[in-house]
Amino acid sequence: MDESGASSPENIIIFDTTLRDGEQSPGAALNIDEKLEIARTLQEMGVDILEAGFPISSPGDFRAVQRISEEIRNCTICGLTRANRKDIEVAAEALKDAARPRIHTGLGVSDVHIKYKLRTTREGALEMGVDAVRYAKRFVEDVQYYTEDAGRADPEYLYRVLEAVIAAGATVVNIPDTTGYSSPEEFGGLIRGILDNVPNIDKAVVSVHCHNDLGMATANTLAGVRNGARQVEVTVNGIGERAGNTSLEEVVMAIRTRSDLFGLTTRIDTRRIYPVSRLVSELTGIPVQPNKAIVGANAFAHSSGIHQDGVLKERTTYEIINPRDVGVPDSEIVLSARSGRAGLRHRLAELGYTLDQEQFEKVYGRFLTVADKKKTVDTRDLEAIIADEVQVFFEETYHLEHVQISCGDHSIPTATVRIRGPNGKVACDADHGTGPVDAVYRAINRVIGEPNELIEFSVQAVTEGIDAVGRVTIRIQAEEPVKENGWERRVFSGRGSDMDIVVASAKAYMFALNRLVAARREAQQGEGN
Amino acid sequence: MDESGASSPENIIIFDTTLRDGEQSPGAALNIDEKLEIARTLQEMGVDILEAGFPISSPGDFRAVQRISEEIRNCTICGLTRANRKDIEVAAEALKDAARPRIHTGLGVSDVHIKYKLRTTREGALEMGVDAVRYAKRFVEDVQYYTEDAGRADPEYLYRVLEAVIAAGATVVNIPDTTGYSSPEEFGGLIRGILDNVPNIDKAVVSVHCHNDLGMATANTLAGVRNGARQVEVTVNGIGERAGNTSLEEVVMAIRTRSDLFGLTTRIDTRRIYPVSRLVSELTGIPVQPNKAIVGANAFAHSSGIHQDGVLKERTTYEIINPRDVGVPDSEIVLSARSGRAGLRHRLAELGYTLDQEQFEKVYGRFLTVADKKKTVDTRDLEAIIADEVQVFFEETYHLEHVQISCGDHSIPTATVRIRGPNGKVACDADHGTGPVDAVYRAINRVIGEPNELIEFSVQAVTEGIDAVGRVTIRIQAEEPVKENGWERRVFSGRGSDMDIVVASAKAYMFALNRLVAARREAQQGEGN
Repeated sequence: MDESGASSPENIIIFDTTLRDGEQSPGAALNIDEKLEIARTLQEMGVDILEAGFPISSPGDFRAVQRISEEIRNCTICGLTRANRKDIEVAAEALKDAARPRIHTGLGVSDVHIKYKLRTTREGALEMGVDAVRYAKRFVEDVQYYTEDAGRADPEYLYRVLEAVIAAGATVVNIPDTTGYSSPEEFGGLIRGILDNVPNIDKAVVSVHCHNDLGMATANTLAGVRNGARQVEVTVNGIGERAGNTSLEEVVMAIRTRSDLFGLTTRIDTRRIYPVSRLVSELTGIPVQPNKAIVGANAFAHSSGIHQDGVLKERTTYEIINPRDVGVPDSEIVLSARSGRAGLRHRLAELGYTLDQEQFEKVYGRFLTVADKKKTVDTRDLEAIIADEVQVFFEETYHLEHVQISCGDHSIPTATVRIRGPNGKVACDADHGTGPVDAVYRAINRVIGEPNELIEFSVQAVTEGIDAVGRVTIRIQAEEPVKENGWERRVFSGRGSDMDIVVASAKAYMFALNRLVAARREAQQGEGN
Repeated sequence: MDESGASSPENIIIFDTTLRDGEQSPGAALNIDEKLEIARTLQEMGVDILEAGFPISSPGDFRAVQRISEEIRNCTICGLTRANRKDIEVAAEALKDAARPRIHTGLGVSDVHIKYKLRTTREGALEMGVDAVRYAKRFVEDVQYYTEDAGRADPEYLYRVLEAVIAAGATVVNIPDTTGYSSPEEFGGLIRGILDNVPNIDKAVVSVHCHNDLGMATANTLAGVRNGARQVEVTVNGIGERAGNTSLEEVVMAIRTRSDLFGLTTRIDTRRIYPVSRLVSELTGIPVQPNKAIVGANAFAHSSGIHQDGVLKERTTYEIINPRDVGVPDSEIVLSARSGRAGLRHRLAELGYTLDQEQFEKVYGRFLTVADKKKTVDTRDLEAIIADEVQVFFEETYHLEHVQISCGDHSIPTATVRIRGPNGKVACDADHGTGPVDAVYRAINRVIGEPNELIEFSVQAVTEGIDAVGRVTIRIQAEEPVKENGWERRVFSGRGSDMDIVVASAKAYMFALNRLVAARREAQQGEGN
């Protein structure tokens, strides 16, 4: 009944909303090229539907949905709208080049939503929903309808709404646990009630969209599936507003590991799970805690050192998921300068990276520098190099040519920077600060002069040993002009890696500043979009 | 039936195993004073039972259980054992001063465990379990019995084991989801089966102990509770081996927020949840991801900047848990140098810190330095200062008197340190490295000369703005002599904060090194324990 594949009842359709609901995580802001990179890896992983954005929300979201529609040909591309004509027209325009476009519209079904947010009656809201579906059907065949706050709605009214929107042509109906407060029993019961009471429910796929506020998103999603839902709405690493959305990796691996229980399957190539998790964490700057299921650093690690521990834990008895099944790389493999181009190319292919010649040469250059200083280069070194040299999706307006720092607990931290700006103009300046990073940032500010505020700063050693490569992620916030609304605070993230963490910090700051400058330029060009 | 409080069917008993199962997280190693500090805050929060360690596993675990038994008077203190006399004797000895001691013993009940791990028969295993309970009853009244791998056991055999150990005197029976692979339906069914089929089950409390390998620990625990379990085994932040244990905060807040559904309560003072979460993260060095339910930095944050977002999200409609209910501090309150001693003391009391005079003066000194450089001091600044000045639980053998660094992208990072060692001996040395942190570490190593390997390094800005206080957490690994086994690799964490992240790194390394030195000294003294 749905071209993305509900024909076999054994398959669960994976609807990924990392780029829409996931990107609403505070500070996760991705630019278009980063969204495209994530979209490509999701396509390779076998995601069925990609929710690419909310086209009317901003020119950036519009263009992201447009570009993803053009490039990603093996997934259904979905755009979110409210239940009104203007939203739907803009979404249809953004989706017009998609191989398989889907419009995702809908509105609230609980009385509190109808009365206080929509300021209408139940009948009025039902009509708005039906109108929206009919209007969306003028543009696309595939229309998904969300029933916000379904858990608090009068069930009889919910069933009536679903029957009406399906009759109007909705191919998928999305039942969200909007607040993330359901228990699996309740949420499963809600889905069961819909399947039992909506007369034409066999004409649509039932989708579930859960939030993790009480830590039960995965269990609720699977309870929905057990009760007849055939599409799950998920994000990589479970990112999203507040405590996030349902984790793609948890749901997919639960279905796979417990096929005895569910008797279901997905189209996901699970060996892509870990690389996609790393990419999303890298580009959004949102870390994954070590005890995160499936993709955390400790997910498959057992503590050592407590010998008696054998009583309670034994590797062969308990480890049912093989780390290789989710693509955790074998970190034992290391390269050295003598591995050469062929060795590096082979290892990158094993890790799932496909680079063009120019990218490969950049990576090879950095590889040699690291190999020279550290002797061996492991998987995480390579991941850091690729994030720096390949996964950079903006035009570099300012380039840091030189930085030097002096600091200590009894000295005044001082930094000097030399920066090449637009038209090749080179400027040099110095400043002091409360610490070396502060000093570097102030010196850069003296040259570039783009007002902003640092709101987050973190460094991680990506490799083991005292000579580890350090990886810095920062977020800066700046006021940006927005038509209609005057000003709006926007967040830009930046990252950089270097064996010197102060240099890595300088690179990360330049990265974020270049994005800020590019966004300002884009906002000026995009006026009237 | 249980003195820690199962008399009222409406109360769920909170069994915290942060210090036992949680501490088995790779690298989480806590020393005795850190365990005591966590135990004190858990007691204040209202935890019913504190599993303090596995006494026979190491002299450190033994002494931790002993000290916690002496000091923590309002919780039942529990020690883990295998089902043998030696383990039970050692646990009883460690627990002998506890106001309410509990021995937690048990063994596997699945055929794979009985046959391959225990190398016995079902009858043999049953007898071992009954013997262990009877023996433990000689020392303590309160005996908890765990049935490892219960999910894969023959239910009839499981019921027989439970009946027999309860008849032998077990007051609590613990049903673990050892692998973390159950669904809530299955796990709830397992508990229901036990309540329906074990004739004397009303003479014991049923406890549930879940793991999070598929992201369902909270849902499984609550399914157990819905089916009659009255004790839940949890850890703060859900730490533990692999993907961790059930999160205390998720279970407690689910029971509280959905009292309509569960009709249950706990004795937890929920306003202590956030401070305890911060303390455990700080002392174990295990970060909490921003999208972690209840205690993540974004758990209550909504993204801004997408104006149309109002359609899908509205604060008043969705935010049911008030951040203040879980003790998230109001970060808007800032102090300045003019706040003085009285202002600082008042704010610390509000945040739940009770310091003695000496500690207060140390904190006040650091507070003035930060206030002087940054003008304002916010909640996170204060937390960092307290972690540095108060929550330091080791003897400082080596003290860093001076550090200075020079580095940059075209220079050779170089550091000079001056360190005061045992007997007041002062030594000064310098070295270069691949980065400033590496250079500092090498210079420190030249002075101190304790072989070790850096395995983890991370920095976070704990405050906003470009002049943020940086917080460094590191882990080092070293080979330590162990009687019987020869050598064992042990991990020591360290932390430090400073406005200069290189100085903070130096402090963190000194912290970890001092712990390593203290542990080596303790191991020498503890021989024969």
